[in-house]
Amino acid sequence: MINFEALFKISYGLYIVSSGSSEYGNGFISNTVFQVTSDPPRFASCCNKDNHTAGVIRSSGHFSVSVLHCDTAAGIIGTFGYKSGKDINKMEGLDLKYGETGVPVVLNEAIAFLECRVVETYDVGTHLMFIGELVHADVLDDGKEPLTYLHYRQVKKGVAPKNAPTYVDKSKLVKKKVEEEFARYECAACGYIYDEEKEGKRFEDLPDDWVCPVCGSEKDDFYKL
Amino acid sequence: MINFEALFKISYGLYIVSSGSSEYGNGFISNTVFQVTSDPPRFASCCNKDNHTAGVIRSSGHFSVSVLHCDTAAGIIGTFGYKSGKDINKMEGLDLKYGETGVPVVLNEAIAFLECRVVETYDVGTHLMFIGELVHADVLDDGKEPLTYLHYRQVKKGVAPKNAPTYVDKSKLVKKKVEEEFARYECAACGYIYDEEKEGKRFEDLPDDWVCPVCGSEKDDFYKL
Repeated sequence: MINFEALFKISYGLYIVSSGSSEYGNGFISNTVFQVTSDPPRFASCCNKDNHTAGVIRSSGHFSVSVLHCDTAAGIIGTFGYKSGKDINKMEGLDLKYGETGVPVVLNEAIAFLECRVVETYDVGTHLMFIGELVHADVLDDGKEPLTYLHYRQVKKGVAPKNAPTYVDKSKLVKKKVEEEFARYECAACGYIYDEEKEGKRFEDLPDDWVCPVCGSEKDDFYKL
Repeated sequence: MINFEALFKISYGLYIVSSGSSEYGNGFISNTVFQVTSDPPRFASCCNKDNHTAGVIRSSGHFSVSVLHCDTAAGIIGTFGYKSGKDINKMEGLDLKYGETGVPVVLNEAIAFLECRVVETYDVGTHLMFIGELVHADVLDDGKEPLTYLHYRQVKKGVAPKNAPTYVDKSKLVKKKVEEEFARYECAACGYIYDEEKEGKRFEDLPDDWVCPVCGSEKDDFYKL
């Protein structure tokens, strides 16, 4: 028996994992970045095989990790988490640096970054796991706390996109009783749920220029549950 | 250039990873437990090759993960994090259950648990990475927050043991200026540092029965830095 609520007790940070070069770069929001050995320091990162960045990392042989802070704006999470590099240039207009490996490092909303050289790639099913040896790392802002997946879920009401290792199909979760006089609206792009009861405001009373706090989609992109 | 302070910005939880059977079980404190695929749900866990539990997981083909809560007592972290199953029976006197896979699940201080069947084992250098398919999971206590490595370091003043993937040799860190009139004492067993300035009390003024808050070692096991 699997109670999928138990999976939310595992702790993760939230990162932008990027790759490519100064000619072309792409990245995605990852919650699975973690150190696997201390000597030499090596990091693992999981990437869905369907993610555009998976191919970019394979080609370049390097990736960077930007550690997001806890007050990260929804916009950047929307761009890197819910949109594809097949459709847009995610790096456009961002504050980037090209580190020792030549891959882009996203500096916006980042408090630290790592650069890794891929030494191994494991096929773990729907995802590839890249094992990277640490080449370069630095702190950008020591005053802010890192964004955790728990904070993103509880405070920012964010949900994992379908390609994330930690995506949970909502139908598998134990349903909690919802007061009938309040409705809930789901964002078709990212799955964020606007809960009238929790927010204390009817969805229809929100201004027309209101946007999804997670991915920036417009009010019309929501449907009633 | 690697600034090792940047590595502390990566977020982790803290877990007891156990294996074995009702005849004999062993476990260790792990901060690298993370989901690698959502369908089917698979989890990875890194274990130092020198850890006694590595051999126990290899023999049994299963492991459990107990998610610790943020007020976890120092004693259980000392036993599972800084002592070896080669020397003591870590499971003695604990509240255990034997789940669907037959491995012991430590219930003390746990708010949730997972049981996994090992489907792949990767050699990532000093550590083995076990990939386990989720067989069983449940929430034990929904009222407490999970313990994070950040909380363990900042609030509980804990440090990673030498066998942890995230162990950082202190000589690699940028030295911060310490006021000369205060001294610091390090626990020889676990590396915990008693800082007189932060604690507001001289080490020599601590009672004789004072023990290391991280691993339970006696006052005599500390040396002045």
